[in-house]
Parts: sequence; structure tokens; C-alpha cells
Amino acid sequence: MCGIFGVFGHKEAAKLTYFGLYALQHRGQESAGMAVSDGREVREYRALGLVPDVFDEEILSRLPGHIAVGHVRYSTTGSTTVKNAQPFCVTHGGCTLALAHNGNLVNAHEIRTELEAQGSIFQTTMDSEVIVHLLAKASRRGIVEAIREAMEVIRGAYSVVLLLPDRLIAFRDPHGFRPLCLGMVNGGYVVSSETCALDLIQAQYLRDIRPGEILVIDENGLHSYEGVKSEATAYCIFEFIYFARPDSYIFGENVYAFRKRLGQGLARERPLEVDFVMPFPDSGNYAAIGYAQATGLPFEMGVIRNHYVGRTFIQPSAGMRDFSVRVKLNPVREILRGKRVAVVDDSLVRGTTSRTRVKAIRETGALEIHMLISCPPIRYPCFYGIDFPTPGELIAAKHSVEEIRRYLELDGLYYLSLEGLIAAAGGDGKRFCLACFTGEYPVPVREGLRKDILER
Amino acid sequence: MCGIFGVFGHKEAAKLTYFGLYALQHRGQESAGMAVSDGREVREYRALGLVPDVFDEEILSRLPGHIAVGHVRYSTTGSTTVKNAQPFCVTHGGCTLALAHNGNLVNAHEIRTELEAQGSIFQTTMDSEVIVHLLAKASRRGIVEAIREAMEVIRGAYSVVLLLPDRLIAFRDPHGFRPLCLGMVNGGYVVSSETCALDLIQAQYLRDIRPGEILVIDENGLHSYEGVKSEATAYCIFEFIYFARPDSYIFGENVYAFRKRLGQGLARERPLEVDFVMPFPDSGNYAAIGYAQATGLPFEMGVIRNHYVGRTFIQPSAGMRDFSVRVKLNPVREILRGKRVAVVDDSLVRGTTSRTRVKAIRETGALEIHMLISCPPIRYPCFYGIDFPTPGELIAAKHSVEEIRRYLELDGLYYLSLEGLIAAAGGDGKRFCLACFTGEYPVPVREGLRKDILER
Amino acid sequence: MCGIFGVFGHKEAAKLTYFGLYALQHRGQESAGMAVSDGREVREYRALGLVPDVFDEEILSRLPGHIAVGHVRYSTTGSTTVKNAQPFCVTHGGCTLALAHNGNLVNAHEIRTELEAQGSIFQTTMDSEVIVHLLAKASRRGIVEAIREAMEVIRGAYSVVLLLPDRLIAFRDPHGFRPLCLGMVNGGYVVSSETCALDLIQAQYLRDIRPGEILVIDENGLHSYEGVKSEATAYCIFEFIYFARPDSYIFGENVYAFRKRLGQGLARERPLEVDFVMPFPDSGNYAAIGYAQATGLPFEMGVIRNHYVGRTFIQPSAGMRDFSVRVKLNPVREILRGKRVAVVDDSLVRGTTSRTRVKAIRETGALEIHMLISCPPIRYPCFYGIDFPTPGELIAAKHSVEEIRRYLELDGLYYLSLEGLIAAAGGDGKRFCLACFTGEYPVPVREGLRKDILER
Amino acid sequence: MCGIFGVFGHKEAAKLTYFGLYALQHRGQESAGMAVSDGREVREYRALGLVPDVFDEEILSRLPGHIAVGHVRYSTTGSTTVKNAQPFCVTHGGCTLALAHNGNLVNAHEIRTELEAQGSIFQTTMDSEVIVHLLAKASRRGIVEAIREAMEVIRGAYSVVLLLPDRLIAFRDPHGFRPLCLGMVNGGYVVSSETCALDLIQAQYLRDIRPGEILVIDENGLHSYEGVKSEATAYCIFEFIYFARPDSYIFGENVYAFRKRLGQGLARERPLEVDFVMPFPDSGNYAAIGYAQATGLPFEMGVIRNHYVGRTFIQPSAGMRDFSVRVKLNPVREILRGKRVAVVDDSLVRGTTSRTRVKAIRETGALEIHMLISCPPIRYPCFYGIDFPTPGELIAAKHSVEEIRRYLELDGLYYLSLEGLIAAAGGDGKRFCLACFTGEYPVPVREGLRKDILER
Repeated sequence: MCGIFGVFGHKEAAKLTYFGLYALQHRGQESAGMAVSDGREVREYRALGLVPDVFDEEILSRLPGHIAVGHVRYSTTGSTTVKNAQPFCVTHGGCTLALAHNGNLVNAHEIRTELEAQGSIFQTTMDSEVIVHLLAKASRRGIVEAIREAMEVIRGAYSVVLLLPDRLIAFRDPHGFRPLCLGMVNGGYVVSSETCALDLIQAQYLRDIRPGEILVIDENGLHSYEGVKSEATAYCIFEFIYFARPDSYIFGENVYAFRKRLGQGLARERPLEVDFVMPFPDSGNYAAIGYAQATGLPFEMGVIRNHYVGRTFIQPSAGMRDFSVRVKLNPVREILRGKRVAVVDDSLVRGTTSRTRVKAIRETGALEIHMLISCPPIRYPCFYGIDFPTPGELIAAKHSVEEIRRYLELDGLYYLSLEGLIAAAGGDGKRFCLACFTGEYPVPVREGLRKDILER
Repeated sequence: MCGIFGVFGHKEAAKLTYFGLYALQHRGQESAGMAVSDGREVREYRALGLVPDVFDEEILSRLPGHIAVGHVRYSTTGSTTVKNAQPFCVTHGGCTLALAHNGNLVNAHEIRTELEAQGSIFQTTMDSEVIVHLLAKASRRGIVEAIREAMEVIRGAYSVVLLLPDRLIAFRDPHGFRPLCLGMVNGGYVVSSETCALDLIQAQYLRDIRPGEILVIDENGLHSYEGVKSEATAYCIFEFIYFARPDSYIFGENVYAFRKRLGQGLARERPLEVDFVMPFPDSGNYAAIGYAQATGLPFEMGVIRNHYVGRTFIQPSAGMRDFSVRVKLNPVREILRGKRVAVVDDSLVRGTTSRTRVKAIRETGALEIHMLISCPPIRYPCFYGIDFPTPGELIAAKHSVEEIRRYLELDGLYYLSLEGLIAAAGGDGKRFCLACFTGEYPVPVREGLRKDILER
Repeated sequence: MCGIFGVFGHKEAAKLTYFGLYALQHRGQESAGMAVSDGREVREYRALGLVPDVFDEEILSRLPGHIAVGHVRYSTTGSTTVKNAQPFCVTHGGCTLALAHNGNLVNAHEIRTELEAQGSIFQTTMDSEVIVHLLAKASRRGIVEAIREAMEVIRGAYSVVLLLPDRLIAFRDPHGFRPLCLGMVNGGYVVSSETCALDLIQAQYLRDIRPGEILVIDENGLHSYEGVKSEATAYCIFEFIYFARPDSYIFGENVYAFRKRLGQGLARERPLEVDFVMPFPDSGNYAAIGYAQATGLPFEMGVIRNHYVGRTFIQPSAGMRDFSVRVKLNPVREILRGKRVAVVDDSLVRGTTSRTRVKAIRETGALEIHMLISCPPIRYPCFYGIDFPTPGELIAAKHSVEEIRRYLELDGLYYLSLEGLIAAAGGDGKRFCLACFTGEYPVPVREGLRKDILER
Repeated sequence: MCGIFGVFGHKEAAKLTYFGLYALQHRGQESAGMAVSDGREVREYRALGLVPDVFDEEILSRLPGHIAVGHVRYSTTGSTTVKNAQPFCVTHGGCTLALAHNGNLVNAHEIRTELEAQGSIFQTTMDSEVIVHLLAKASRRGIVEAIREAMEVIRGAYSVVLLLPDRLIAFRDPHGFRPLCLGMVNGGYVVSSETCALDLIQAQYLRDIRPGEILVIDENGLHSYEGVKSEATAYCIFEFIYFARPDSYIFGENVYAFRKRLGQGLARERPLEVDFVMPFPDSGNYAAIGYAQATGLPFEMGVIRNHYVGRTFIQPSAGMRDFSVRVKLNPVREILRGKRVAVVDDSLVRGTTSRTRVKAIRETGALEIHMLISCPPIRYPCFYGIDFPTPGELIAAKHSVEEIRRYLELDGLYYLSLEGLIAAAGGDGKRFCLACFTGEYPVPVREGLRKDILER
């Protein structure tokens, strides 16, 4: 996953981008970067690390200009090098362009092989680079036409912000897998993965970039083109369930309210006789609140989050079991001892972390532990940008709910049903990509990629 | 404030101390350090920064031994230099000792002046150093006697862990202002400011170090001495209200449960007619839960905390008002718009942050905003280690509740009463230091120090 | 200018390359890098800085393998970024290659424009990158054929070492502008710009790579191919005069002995009546020795070199004139006062440094100062890799010897004649490129490049 | 050994000190530091490393003021920690002082033990710290009197520069072992170990600080006091032979001229029949020049110094013998092959490096190698600050000249005689400390220290 952000027409474009990326940090913690144009020259800076560690005042001061594009990255491919940090910048025919991409192409490998046979040299292993090569090939026909040609060729998920020395261009795949919205601040425009970045810089939300749309922002304002025709949307429902920030609006809706409806749906499907309901913070907070309100059960925060956990690489000593899980959350014995508790979480992926957490709660002397998951079992891999583990590690791909309950050593385990999920989403499941639950992929995936994913 | 931690008799003493300090990070984020002995040689490492930034595997590997003392520091005196990082280590007469101190002496200045006149040279500006000089002066009479003599001279708050090449010693002032507990892990002993550090390293809680006690831990086990007679305790109640971690037990009680009782007390004193109750996270979480449960009102998390906020020094651009507050918490418009809300916080110090937060909530379209504070107005400075601002900046020192309500632009502002606080504390207020609320100081403070504090 | 180095068939290829680059450091101080292959995977590391600052044991340990190529760079184009550090590595069609280039192409710009029009994307501004793109275009026909095709297209100076996962290839332009030699150590082969690198690693010198030759080194040994026909050589004589290390053999001759002959030539042409002869160290040392021996004059080291001068960026305070020159050399008053001195230097480029040095000598009380330059006046730019300033700044391009003497405030200024230079070079001037003295360029230079150089 | 530098009355005192230390870098490469006063507040900065690595513009800008003291250190005691970097700064009784010391006390241990018994706490293991403690003890009687009392107690070698918030004080032991001179620049005063630092900042040399003198520099100018009576001087002759920079004047004489006289003395004592004379650069340069001029033999630079050798810690690979010696100097085969050579060096300490160098020269095909040493055999340890190895490692302490010649595999080895040394020094050996040659120590050394040195 990644977060992308762009600015056009604000004299402190780099600073705005810095804060925009700051607000989007939850979408990617591996690297951060930005490219900034003053109308003529494009300057860039990228590094591994969190936004506040990558940038400082001095670096920003060396990035003057009123147009900017930024990116935070969470590696989906495993190779952690600054080379793969975005935005991806190239100078071609005397013109520099910088591209920030959120999503995953399903036919990048085929395109790359074809281009290399023609003599093209690739700098990175990112699928985003094929978009740039396609733009270079077609550059004689103008940038909008070049993007349109590229959109004919590439398939999969892409929300893209592209900076040219004098323009900012946003485009989005015809299914609209990943969010991308447009805002306005002090007469300038901003483009962002989520609205939480607009809130931080006190920008006003205007609208989403439409699936299939190419939106050019230049001195003369906004220019919208149809890139490819969008026949049906396939919004990633996992953005709502887990990925996006609760204060954001994506795909036209607020994430917190969506998650609360998931908890209310669980309450309708699975009312439990327990002493209280508690979340695994922070991912389970909002569904837990919805569940507590719908059932009338007390809400407690039975495990405490340590706010100073960073990227520690110190190995615990021999006697310290399950350290990496325990250091993040500590159960509160006083609250849990002798109680029947319902624990709410947003999803179960591998199950290993939850298992350790349940054990830690059990050791406090809790009497019964029931777990409520605010989505259906995740059974299928994502090819559009969510970094699930291979199906072999996806616990629900191979195991029944009862087997998972036993593995987690729970007194009860209850998933929200697919119907419950669709109901919480407003009743119309067709707007969404539900492939991780159903295996029905809106964009076909070639066998090779499927195999790569399954075997990596 | 500071956090202190010690280990005796564990072969990975440095690693244990690392994790102990990790769990105590909330008590001090300015510097971290530790000294470790292998029975003969004492090695130390201290630096500015958070625990995981200060230490890595390589540094820990250069600190071998089975005895250790560690410290995290939040500067109470303003001078941020690594020189003032603890533990404070000296070699005297061929013997190295390392001292970690939590608390504040009220007569450090007088002692220092006297010692300097006799030719002593001080290395730092920390009041902790005077303890070391007193120990050096009396070292001929043995370390326990030297500590006892020092305890006769120094006055104020001190929970101390002292490392010698072959021993670990913990001692605590006769009023017991600051917490200090003893645990056991794999046959070794640990000493810690709070029990949350014991939980992380899976140590078992044994007991608190007693006010006035000197506890020596060596090859032969525990040896307890009476340092000075403790006539009455003066536990810092602000440790419960704000400072300690909710999962810790301090002074024999759990912090979460204490805070929930504060919220329940508020509910008894001030039941409000609102749509829901919400905390300012995370400090207000537990009192808000107590209030919600006692009133039956829905609990919501109306503001979202950004988990990636670090020490950013980037100045926001011109149009971005109240940035440093907004970057930490973002209100959720969907939840707040058109609602009457009760916001719970643990305390009000300057009021400036709360004012900005209230304004941000107001801008979402909330109809009424009431604030509930889970302690009485803070009117007096602390001389025992809590770093309140000067009385001139303590909003309740100069202003009535109604004036504060108007300043914060609230529809209602309600403090827990002193009686409510004492009731939540079990009814016996005399065990505690309540000086910040009452101005009654358990250890007299000379006029000079009082003036220094008032004018700094 | 740059230094290049390669290894085939030594199990510590990275370490050997490290030491090779160490010995070639005088050829480039801006950046250092290497790529190493274990037969399958190619790993690389490059950074700005000196060789011992760029690499450490840990970095070398992450570069395992028996084949390596290394590079030290002195920027000839002004953009100091790690992007332009070599070796230049690309992965194309699944095969990684790494290229290190010493020299300068005269038609890189035209080739690049043509390739970009076909859709190629360039990563850097280095002319070396066009070689790699040409290789990629022709890669289907095998690497030797691809190099041969590239050599047909590129014109100018290039000594190149190319690493493939299982081979090392060295090739050199048909004029042989830059040196490149072959050695052997412990059964493996090494390729180096100068023999001083062979000495350091105790390798045995075998022969030079021939102008126009492609030399492939693989598991089966050496394979020599004719890349392009070499009709006449054009060895850069400035390598002898200034650039190469005095202990090296280049183009088949020792540099120290060559420089001594230059001094002896000066003695024949310009015997002076002075008290002693001294060099500007270290560049003038060897010609000064030759001059002293031929004239029988005493040799002194009248200015002392400060061996700890690094890249200091501290601005001197107001009263400190000519600081950057003085910090490097300090005249010895005791030796110079009241004396008539002959100062020998290898060349005069801008003249600004010499002017300051002469002034500093004058201030000691020297009676007469004569300067002897061991080459003719440099009047023309170099397009083959020596980084002279623009002709506007080349003092001899615009000024007569008498004008320069007056500018330097000398009592006498004497250049070696072109005939003297040719005589020192063994009498046959045609083997050498003498363009910087004569303006006769062995490889034609298009007007545009000439203009770029003149106006930059 | 160390270099010390002080400034009074120059508005850019930190910058001047930076450049002063830069020029004194040869006296210590382990750490650098300075303390600067603006008349009220004293600020300091110290770190491990070379002067240009330790300081930058930003650090200097945080050291405002017109009084400064600086220090470069070469550890004589082996513990490389920044704690032992000087100047040593303490705040005592509200007044900060900073002390920079060159030399070595012979009774530091006894004084320290006595002070610790009285309760004093030492921060470092440097003997310089005892001077500060003695000053603190006597501070009531004013600083000049306190220094005088300290000078009564301490014995050995000390050239000291002491900074107080409003004064600079220089004092020197009654034997004047280490140099210390006074200069003037732009109306301000500077104090420096050597005059080369005065040259760099274009200051004018005034005079040396006298043995036994206390010189106070304040707003009212210079104030000279007699600290202790100086009965006889004992200038370290090794400063002339090896340590000081050749362009400096120390003890009233120029170092280059002194060394040239040593070479001329050798020529008188040992005229050799060889093809040429060459130095081991740079230490042997000046005696070699003297020798060449006196004998009429040609002077050559038969080994080339690599100017980019830094602190490399990369271990050479298996086949690379004697790497650390070879990387610094490379012999020039062309010059040496088939020749009889006389190599001049300033001194022989362990002999290991020379042995490797001789071997490297032999491998070039030189016919005969004779070595000339421009001082007598070093047979005794130095207790006054020169860091010779223990007598067990001093090659001449245990071996005859013939044995050394065989160990070095030389055709001839010739030392300057003690008489020759004294003659070069002007005929009066009594002004100098010659203890390393004669074993006659001007200041008695207690048995314990002698043993410590012998056994370390």
C-alpha cells in the first residue's frame, strides 16, 4: 500500500506535501519522497524512513516551487531500497516528470519484458516504472494522449499523481480500486489518497477523481479528460475495514461511521452474554464502539497500547516469550480478572498475533474470551495492492472458523457475514471489490502472477 | 519526571534494562542511559533520545554483566544536554558507582554551595549529583552508612537506584513521593518505577520499596535497612491522575481502575444531558469510560489520534493555524456534527491545547461542548518532581472556573471536587500529597526555591 | 578524470578493488563505488566521498564474489550527486552489468538525443550511460559484438571496465587517450588505470590494454578481440606532466623519470643564477629534482605542506587573506629570507593559486623569485577528459608569458618549450595528444560541444 | 603529545582557534576541542576526530566570544574517549574555567589519591584534572595565587592555557619542557604551542612564555607573574628532531634549519659512497637535504607518499604482506633499481616500519641500502609527554647498532652521535632534556611511575 499527494498552485508546495504525507503516514512507513517544481526545474528528495525522519526544514528549503507530488510507501514486493522509493523521477527529452503510484498492476511483467526486448533499460523493480516507459514511448503525441495510450495497455489498480514542470496530472484506473480525492486550499489544488490529509492542511474537499478520469491541473485551472471508459467500480472494501484512517472520507463515505456499522451488524448477528466489550486497539476501536452501543454492554480498553514502540530490532532475551506482541499491548489485569470478555478486531490475517494477545489476556485470569471479527474470513489473495500474505499463511484460506477458534484458544469466534458486510456498506455489494472474501476478481489475473503470489 | 530501573542477578542485565526502560518511556523521553556491571567493571552508555533510538544490539553487546541500572529522563530544569542524562556515573577511590534518581530535592542548592566551598567540583547541574558527593564524603564508613548519612541531609522526593560493581541498592525518601517497586525474574531481582516494566519482561511483582527504606541486593540476596524513619506517606496523587501508565500498579493500586473511579465520581457530581461522552485520547480515556458506564451515555472516540507524530520541527505554512495540536488529534466530523458532546480529560494545566481542540471540535458543527476534568483545579506548583509550568501559566492559579470556561469557549466546564478525588482514592486523603490542589506541602520548601520556581 | 579498476578470479575481489581504488584515489576524490559478482548475482555500492570513507569492512562483507569493477570519480561536469557515481549498474533482460568509464566522449549528446527519441529513458547526465544504452540495443548479438557496434558509434576518449555476472571486459578507444593496464595476482587478473594500484596489491604487471582492443576475461582466461582498428595513438601527455602518480608506469614509461627529464630539459633551456631550487610540493617535486641535479643547484623544500588539510568549508575571518592557499603550504622564513629562489611547478592553469603562493614567499623576505614550469603554456581546452577551466580562465590562452609573469609578480617566469617537452618524451611527439598546447585535436570535436565547453 | 592554543581579545575567537588547531593538528589527531567565552558565559565543544571533522561553521557559530582556548590531543594513556578530550571544563562556585594542557605530570597519581581521600570526585583519568582540583581547593585566594600553589605541588612537564570567563592565563613548568609562545593579531593576543599556528592566522610572534611564568591576559593587557623559580631549562630536544613542524620556531629556533644541521652533522660524521640520498618522507626530508648539500650527492624522492591515507580499518587480504606500511609509501622502481642508496630518517623507535620499508626498497632491485638516523639511539622512556613505547619495544634499549642493522636488513646503519646532536643544537647541551638518549632525567621520577611505564 501507499499514500500519494499532490499540490498545484501553492507557494509552499513542498511544505504542504510534507504535511499531507504526514497525515497519510499510516498508508506507508517504509519510505517517503517528493518532487517539487518551480515551473521550470524539478527537484526531488526521497529516503527510507518515516516522513518526519526523512524531511527537515533544510531539505524542504531546497525544494522550492508551487507544484509538488509526494509519496509514502509500504513495500509490497519486499525489496527495501531507496531506489524503489517514489516519486519515480526521470528526465526524458529534456523534460523531467515525477510519478507517484498507489495500487498494483497485474500485467507489469509482460509489458516490461516487451519493452526490454526493444532496448529500454529499467532502473527499478517497481511496476510503476512501466507506466513511465509507456509515457516516454508515446511522448510525441502529448502527455494526455500518452497517458490515454498507457491506460489502454496497463491493467489493475492505479491511482496516480504525475508532476510535470508546469502541470500536475491525476489519473485513476477505470475500476477505482484505490481512493483519490481533490481539494482546494488558498486558491491552489491538492490531490490526496484520503481526506485526512486535506483536514490537516485545512483544505476544502471538492470531489473524488473519477474512475478512468485524467485530470490535468495547470495555470488555467482544471481540465478533465476521459482516459478509459469506466463500466463498473470495484472500490476496495478493505480500505474501509482496515486501511484508511477513521477520520477520512473515501469513496464518498466516512470510515469511522462505516466501521461502527460493522460493529452494529455484528451485534445483530452475534449478541453475546459477556461482562464487557473491548477492542484490540486501535484497529478494533470503532467496531467495538458500534457493538457496545448496539448491545448496551459496557465498553472497556482492556489492553493498553504502548505509544513509544518504534522499529526496534533488539532481540528479547531467552525467557521473554511473545515479546514483539507484548511490547505493543499490555492487558490490564485489574479489568480482566474474573470477567467474561468480548474482544473486537477488524480482521484476522495470519492469526499469530491474535493468538499471543488472547494468551496474554487469558493469563490475567479472564474467565471467558470471545472474539468478534468485523468482516468475513479472508480467503483469497489481493492482486490490486493490499499486501496480504500468501494463501498458505492466510489462516482462513485453509481452516474452518472452528479450527481457527481452537488455534486462537478462544471460547468463541464470530465473523461478520458477507451479507452483514454488504448491508453495512449500504446494501449494494457490486460497487466494491470483495475478492479477498469471495475470490471473484474484477480484473482478470494471468496465471503467472497468480503463481508468483502463491509461491512468494 | 523520570523512570528508573535496576537489575541484579540476570545474565542479560543490559537487555532486561533496555526493555524495562522501553516500558517506562512515558516517564521520560529526553534521554536514556544505563550502567552495567559484570561484578568488577562498570560500563555505561547514555544519550539524548528515545530508548530504541539510543540503544541498539551492538551497544548492548558492549555492556556485559548481571547487574544494571537504567534511567529515562524528562528534563525538569530545561537544560537538554547529554551531560545531564542519567545514570550519573563516577569513579571514586577506585570504585565506580552509577546512580539513577527520580524526584526532586528541595535543598540541593544549599548542599552544593557548601560542598563547593570545601573544594568539590560538580560535573552537572542535576540535583542528583549532590547525593553522589555526599556518598563520596562519607564513603569510609561503608555504603549503607553513607546513604543513611546522605538521607539525613537531603530533603524532598527521591526514589533512587544505585549500582556498585557488586551490588544494587534502592532507596526511597521517607514520604515515598515517587513509586518504586521490587520484582523477581528467573531468580534475579528487578527494581522499577512502575509495574508495567515488570509485565513486559514477565517478572513477578514482590512488593514496593518502603518509604525511608534502603534495600541492598547482592550475591546473598535482599538486605533491608531503615534509612530514615518514615512518619507519614505523601504519595503523589498526580501519578494516578496523569503520569503513570494505566496498566501499572503504583502505591499498591491499579491506575486504570483509579482513573475509572474518577470518571464515576464525575458522573455522580455532574451528570450531563448530552448525546455522548468522548475522551481526549489517551489521557482522558479511562475517566471517560467510567463516566459513560456510570451515566449510561454512549462512548465515542470523536477525535482520532495520529500515531506517527514524532518530534517534528517543521514550521507549518502561513495559513495553517494551530498546527501542532491538529497534527496530533483530528476530530471526526461525521460523529460530531449536530451533536451535544461531553469531552473528558484528566487535567487542565495551561489550557492552550484544550482551547484549540475545543475550537476544532466546534468547527465540525457540534452543537454543545461540555468538558469534564477528572481532578480539581491545579493551583499550586510542585516542588517534588512534577514539571508544572510556573503559577503564572497555571490557568487555575489565577482564574475562576467560569473564566476558564469562557477562555476555552465551552458550553460547560466541570472539575471533580477535592472530596470526589479523595473518595476515589479510597477516602483517606492523608496518605497522599495533594499540594498542587491545596498548597499544603508535606516537606517545607525554602523561600528561595519557591521564588526560583515562580520566576523561572 | 577518473580511476578504474577491475578484478577477475580472486576470492576477495571486493577487498582487492578497495585497495586498488585506494591507490588510484588521486584520480578522483568526489565519489567511489564498486560492483561485485559471485558468478550469479551482482551487488553494488557507491557513495560520495573518499574510498576509506565510502567503504568499511561491513560494506565489503556484503559484496561477496570473485569478479569486481571499481571507480573513483572527479566530476568533469559539475553535478555532484551520488546518482552520477560509477560504476553505472543496470539490469536488462534479467542480466546485470556494471560499467566504469575513464575519459570523455565527444558525441554523447547526439547519441543520447537519438536514443531518447526512440523512447529510451536515461537515469543520469553522464556520457558513460550512452555506452550502456548502445549495449542494450545490440544485446541480442552477444556482448562482444554489442561492444564492437558501440565502438563504431562513440567517439572520443574511453578506457572502460565492464562487469557481467560471469565475465570482466576491458576496452579502450582506438587512440588510447587514457591509460589502462593488465596485471596478475594469485592466479587472478586485475585491470587498472595505473600500475601504482598493482604495486599496492602486489600484483604483477603484464601489459597494457591495447588501443581499440576488447579484452574478455572469463573462466577460460583471456580473450582478445579487435574492437575498432587503431590507426594512431594519442596518449594524453598531461597524464605524465601532472595527473598520474610518480611511481606509476603508464603508456609503458615511469612517470617520475619522465618528470625528472622535464626538469632536466628546463635546466638545459633555462639555467638560472639563484641560491637554490625548490618545488611547489608535491606536483613540482620531480621536475625540481631534475633541475637541481642538472644545474648542480641546492634543492630545498622552501614551503611546507600541511598534511591534515581536508575538505574544510569554514570561512576564514576577515583579516585572513588567501587562506585556502596558505593553509595548504606555509613558506619557511628561515630558508627563504634574503635568498634568490627558483620555484618549479608542473603547470600553470588559472595562475591564481600560484600568485598567492608567490606573494607568501615574497613576504618572508626572499630577494628574487623565479618560476619554472615543466610544460609549455596551456592554451586550449581538453575534450577528452582533463577538466581544465574554460579558455576564458586558462591564463595562457589570453596572455603572453610576460603578462603572466607580471600578474604573478615574479622576477622571472620560464616555460619548457614544446620541443623540450617532445624531447623529454623521447623525441616522437606523434604518439601523444598535445592538443592543450597546440590546439590540434586528434578526434574532431563538433562545434556545439566546443561551444558548450567555451561557455560553461 | 598535544597542541594548545588560546585567544584573547579577538571577536572571532572560536574561528581563530579553529585555524590555530588546524595548524597544530600534527601534535594530536585523536580529539579536538575548544572553550569560548563572551566575557560572561563559557561554551565548549569537544569530540574525537580531526579538527576539520570535529568542527563546522554551525558549531563555531554556537561558540560566540572574544576569548578562547583550544586543544588537540594525541592520547598518551591509551583510553580513547571523548571524556578525556580537552579543554577540561568545570564550573565551580558559579565560575566556569577551561584548561588545556600539553605535557605530563610525574606525580599526578599521588595528588589524586590524596584529593579523593578528602572526598573529591574526578571525572576523567587525565593527569590534567588534578591541576583543576588543586585550583578549586585554593580558589578563595584568587586565581594567580591558586596557580602558584598548584605549581608548588605538581611536578613534570606542563604548558597550560587556562580560560576564565574574563581572562586567559598561560603558565609553563619551570623547566620549559614543552614549547609555548605568545603572538598578537589585530590587537588581540594569541598563545600557541608552535609558531606555525601564528603564521596561518597571520599573527605576529612576540615572545615565548617563560619557564615558570604565569601570564595573565585580560582587558588591561598582559600581566606577568613568577609562578615558580626556573633554575635551569630542559627543552625537549625531540620536539626539534621529530615532533614540531619544520616551519615553526620553538625555543627560539627554526625547526627546518635545525634538522638540516642534523643532516650536515651526519655528513661530517658519515660520508657515504652511494648513488644518491633520499628521505623517508616527510620526517627525513630536511636532514636528507642537509646531508645531500653537505656531501654533494644527488637528492631523490625514492619512495612516494600516498596523500589520501586515512584511518583505514580494512584488513588486507591474505596475500598482502606489510600492507599498512606499503599503503603509505611506495618505492619507485625506476629510480632505485641497480642503485646504491642512502636513506635518511629522523629517528628509529621500534624499527618495525623501517624494516618493512627497507624490504620494499630491496625488492625494487636496489644494490645497497644504507640508513642514516639524524639522532642518537633512543634508549630510555620519556616521562614528560613524548609517547615512546615501553623500553621493551624501544629497539635501541636492548640492541646494539649492529644488531639493529641486521634486523633491518641494511647494508649500513649510522646514527648521529650525541656530540653531533649537541653541536647541531649550538654546542650547549645543558639547555635541553636529552633523557631519552642519556637516561639522565631533569625531574626525578618516582619508582611507581617508572614501573607503570615499563610494564604498560
